[in-house]
Amino acid sequence: MPDYAAILKEIAEVVRPLTAEGKVADYIPELARFSRDKFGMALYTTDGQMYTVGDAGERFSIQSISKVFTLVMTIRLVGEALFSRVGKEPSGNPFNSLVQLEYEKGIPRNPFINAGALVVTDELLSHTPDAMGDVLDFVRKISGSPTVQYDLAVAASERSNGFTNAALANFLKANHNLKNGVEEVLEAYFYHCSLAMSCEDLARAFQFLANHGVMEQGGPRLLSESQAKRLNAIMLSCGFYDEAGEFAFRVGLPGKSGVGGGIAAVLPGKWSVAVWSPAINRQGNSVAGMKALELLTTLTGESIF
Amino acid sequence: MPDYAAILKEIAEVVRPLTAEGKVADYIPELARFSRDKFGMALYTTDGQMYTVGDAGERFSIQSISKVFTLVMTIRLVGEALFSRVGKEPSGNPFNSLVQLEYEKGIPRNPFINAGALVVTDELLSHTPDAMGDVLDFVRKISGSPTVQYDLAVAASERSNGFTNAALANFLKANHNLKNGVEEVLEAYFYHCSLAMSCEDLARAFQFLANHGVMEQGGPRLLSESQAKRLNAIMLSCGFYDEAGEFAFRVGLPGKSGVGGGIAAVLPGKWSVAVWSPAINRQGNSVAGMKALELLTTLTGESIF
Amino acid sequence: MPDYAAILKEIAEVVRPLTAEGKVADYIPELARFSRDKFGMALYTTDGQMYTVGDAGERFSIQSISKVFTLVMTIRLVGEALFSRVGKEPSGNPFNSLVQLEYEKGIPRNPFINAGALVVTDELLSHTPDAMGDVLDFVRKISGSPTVQYDLAVAASERSNGFTNAALANFLKANHNLKNGVEEVLEAYFYHCSLAMSCEDLARAFQFLANHGVMEQGGPRLLSESQAKRLNAIMLSCGFYDEAGEFAFRVGLPGKSGVGGGIAAVLPGKWSVAVWSPAINRQGNSVAGMKALELLTTLTGESIF
Amino acid sequence: MPDYAAILKEIAEVVRPLTAEGKVADYIPELARFSRDKFGMALYTTDGQMYTVGDAGERFSIQSISKVFTLVMTIRLVGEALFSRVGKEPSGNPFNSLVQLEYEKGIPRNPFINAGALVVTDELLSHTPDAMGDVLDFVRKISGSPTVQYDLAVAASERSNGFTNAALANFLKANHNLKNGVEEVLEAYFYHCSLAMSCEDLARAFQFLANHGVMEQGGPRLLSESQAKRLNAIMLSCGFYDEAGEFAFRVGLPGKSGVGGGIAAVLPGKWSVAVWSPAINRQGNSVAGMKALELLTTLTGESIF
Repeated sequence: MPDYAAILKEIAEVVRPLTAEGKVADYIPELARFSRDKFGMALYTTDGQMYTVGDAGERFSIQSISKVFTLVMTIRLVGEALFSRVGKEPSGNPFNSLVQLEYEKGIPRNPFINAGALVVTDELLSHTPDAMGDVLDFVRKISGSPTVQYDLAVAASERSNGFTNAALANFLKANHNLKNGVEEVLEAYFYHCSLAMSCEDLARAFQFLANHGVMEQGGPRLLSESQAKRLNAIMLSCGFYDEAGEFAFRVGLPGKSGVGGGIAAVLPGKWSVAVWSPAINRQGNSVAGMKALELLTTLTGESIF
Repeated sequence: MPDYAAILKEIAEVVRPLTAEGKVADYIPELARFSRDKFGMALYTTDGQMYTVGDAGERFSIQSISKVFTLVMTIRLVGEALFSRVGKEPSGNPFNSLVQLEYEKGIPRNPFINAGALVVTDELLSHTPDAMGDVLDFVRKISGSPTVQYDLAVAASERSNGFTNAALANFLKANHNLKNGVEEVLEAYFYHCSLAMSCEDLARAFQFLANHGVMEQGGPRLLSESQAKRLNAIMLSCGFYDEAGEFAFRVGLPGKSGVGGGIAAVLPGKWSVAVWSPAINRQGNSVAGMKALELLTTLTGESIF
Repeated sequence: MPDYAAILKEIAEVVRPLTAEGKVADYIPELARFSRDKFGMALYTTDGQMYTVGDAGERFSIQSISKVFTLVMTIRLVGEALFSRVGKEPSGNPFNSLVQLEYEKGIPRNPFINAGALVVTDELLSHTPDAMGDVLDFVRKISGSPTVQYDLAVAASERSNGFTNAALANFLKANHNLKNGVEEVLEAYFYHCSLAMSCEDLARAFQFLANHGVMEQGGPRLLSESQAKRLNAIMLSCGFYDEAGEFAFRVGLPGKSGVGGGIAAVLPGKWSVAVWSPAINRQGNSVAGMKALELLTTLTGESIF
Repeated sequence: MPDYAAILKEIAEVVRPLTAEGKVADYIPELARFSRDKFGMALYTTDGQMYTVGDAGERFSIQSISKVFTLVMTIRLVGEALFSRVGKEPSGNPFNSLVQLEYEKGIPRNPFINAGALVVTDELLSHTPDAMGDVLDFVRKISGSPTVQYDLAVAASERSNGFTNAALANFLKANHNLKNGVEEVLEAYFYHCSLAMSCEDLARAFQFLANHGVMEQGGPRLLSESQAKRLNAIMLSCGFYDEAGEFAFRVGLPGKSGVGGGIAAVLPGKWSVAVWSPAINRQGNSVAGMKALELLTTLTGESIF
């Protein structure tokens, strides 16, 4: 077994300078307030060991990483029926593109582009009495952190600036692929994106995807083995917007990134991992985070390929 | 270790009826001549065991599976410099689309769409004195089959009907992403696609990708460990045209399909596999072949996820 | 001079059977209530003669024909500065397409596709204290009909079903090409589209475009000669969605159609004309109306070409 | 009647400085050899008066203006049946785009984009024993200039660099919208584009389009009145690539431009006109030529609108 503690330490040293590259997301002030100097990483093995380095305990806005949680919850509720409303093919376009959605008549390409996540949220809303509370409960349970919270300032700010997402939601509604009201779906969506979690929280929360669907040793099963495998497949194909191929090529792990600079990923059978550094590249993925995960698979010699 | 022999036998029984679905490619008569009843499968473990079922020893037109061989040869010659001329992102479009190529100014999205393979062929032509002979030698070497051959009738027929590929090659040339002559590149490309191999040939030939770059136990290294990992990543992201996500979702193996009904895939560290059944779906992938590989990962419980 | 009275009579006879073709717009019930049997036509010469046939005096929902009125009002206020926010090229896409808008970074192709009309409305809102009242006053003045009104039921119904327009407005806002609030612009836009006018009203209201910018003999100048010419050019290039070429080809007049089945057009120096029949073709243009105008130019031997 | 001689003189003075703007086409050396200082203009009235200024007698490469001649010849042979193979809607895309062609399954948007002209050439080839000779004869007849010639150096150079056109022709063939051989169609197409004519030649050759289909006073009818009107409509909608709207807006005449810097246009019932200045803008239209025609309609107060 690799010496994960030493490897995380080495990674942190190597990637620190990269925190100077890229750009902290600033389309809302609440995201711009994070210092670009931050870097944290947490690796959690399937036999229960947690390794951390840097700012692994500090909470940040997980943004699109939340799409994994709502997707899992929805699959638990409706199974693969969901995939009549949303595809599972990589997009090859920016996460917020309307072009593909129009060509494909309102069926989003996959659940991780914004249009797809809006459809997932809509489906979830149709099956849970309290989507806001239920998502929070679920994330607290799988992360083992009862203090995980929505960041209301982030949610409110996204809401008042979210014109592209409003365009997508209205277009879905026009194409009869939104059951609930446009405003209702957008509000839930922005809440979910505003979840504040640390690398440690995320590494724990993603553990069940490293563990073939079971939460932890002796914990409850959240997804069937087949569902867990399929969710990992979607993360690998679609988890990094129009940089999914690049991430598979350089890193070789199923994962999901967020515009807040976080990335969570798993190596099935071995570990889950989360990394955070606020400055992102043009595709919306953390510069230092991408490099940290590339180093992790290189230094451990472990990847899915 | 799973009982591969029994599993292959079970798979063959289950998928036989599926050979009645889909459509044998008939855009050239030389492909239409194969009977849709054919089904073969060969699995070759990294410790040297070969398991076969059905028509695993019969040769067929491997078509686009050859793109893996020319890509590997080119990477051996020029390394990652190749990726300044061709991307590595999934395409989300049919394999022969011109649209993406125009939007992206003549840089094909990845090496497995036709435009990308033409660029790879072009690069190969610039570095080998005899691209036709060298590719044949390489494939014979890695498959251990000195009788592997081009099917000249297939090559000639593709050549005289290949207007879409000619459109792509001319467009690449217009965008200064083709160094050699249009006709020269097309001719080499059609030759490579015409390679006739069996499932057994292919399972052996793909072994080095299951074996982290090394041909077989004690054999020569063809790619570095990192290169082998990256090639598998490209196969997973891009190996199945606009059905790459579906294949990852259902099967969960890096692989490459061809319009002749063949699919080759690998599970790194464990085995390489090839399957063949001529009838293909609308996306160009073998119907029975896709199902056979899905069953393989389900019944063995083995996949990269 | 052609015998316009006889020609209109002949046209009405010939096109009556065509009212059975096409489909009355039914995306809101308020439009579906019009009988497909209706047909009316009014021709108003620059020397002040009005010729009518059929239901030329009955008011209907002019819908997108209103885009001409708001465009003229905005050009009167800001001149050609408007064209930094909206183009003047034909679109070649359906009137409500988001695709082009994304590729062109939020600058609508022309003022007559919906996105372009939303920008025009937005600019108008920035320069008039009471856009709803001012537009109504202007249309009453140029049509000489003080009883022209908004149809509040139509406006309300469009508002509650207008998800595609809401998508467009939000996307414009996201691209910083909307100065006022999304809701405010949409509300004004839907009001303007709800104007109810008759063929006679429209023939009078379009007179100034047949008259090089002057309202009627001795009337006030509304646009400079150059502005009137340019407005006619935009109508010819862009007035019929993705059927602009077909209309120029068959009819050869600058004009504008609406989904309510109305079309208004002009022959500069000679006359303005309006025609109405509710059933529309797949492109959104009145079937009988298109044919009526084609016959008008054929039977009179008059067109701009 | 305006004083055309004085107006042409004034135009020449005003636009001379504009010959310094834009860029002489240099994708083949034979076009780059023309001096950017050239400016010529010829106006030919329907009552037979010719007015010229500057280099109106010098021959240049008419390039895409030739598309009008082959279209007229083809319509004379097959009538509107041609429009089952090619549309008549404006394109909104660059003249050599493949994107639209793929979305529209190989039916070019109109006869004046390159793909459309290739289809017209193909249709012509199917109906004339000697397309090269017949086109030359036709152009000599309608221009009254028996010395008009192909420029063989231009044709040869286009042929050896015409990769984009070869891509288009192959794509048309792949979509079953080319009856003759790819090479045969390309060769004829490049010959037609290489025609060398002067402004005087062109003004005469376009006269029949100003004259409702009749060549000159007392001359033969080339097109029916309706066909002439429709051809003018196509020129207005589609004659200037993705600048058709701008040209209609600023100039207001049906016309056709070529990358050699020539533009021919007509005012039905009054005159035909040709202008030439080699430097072109980004859309491929002569900078000084566009301005000259804008001034012509402004100073004469004559346009179709």
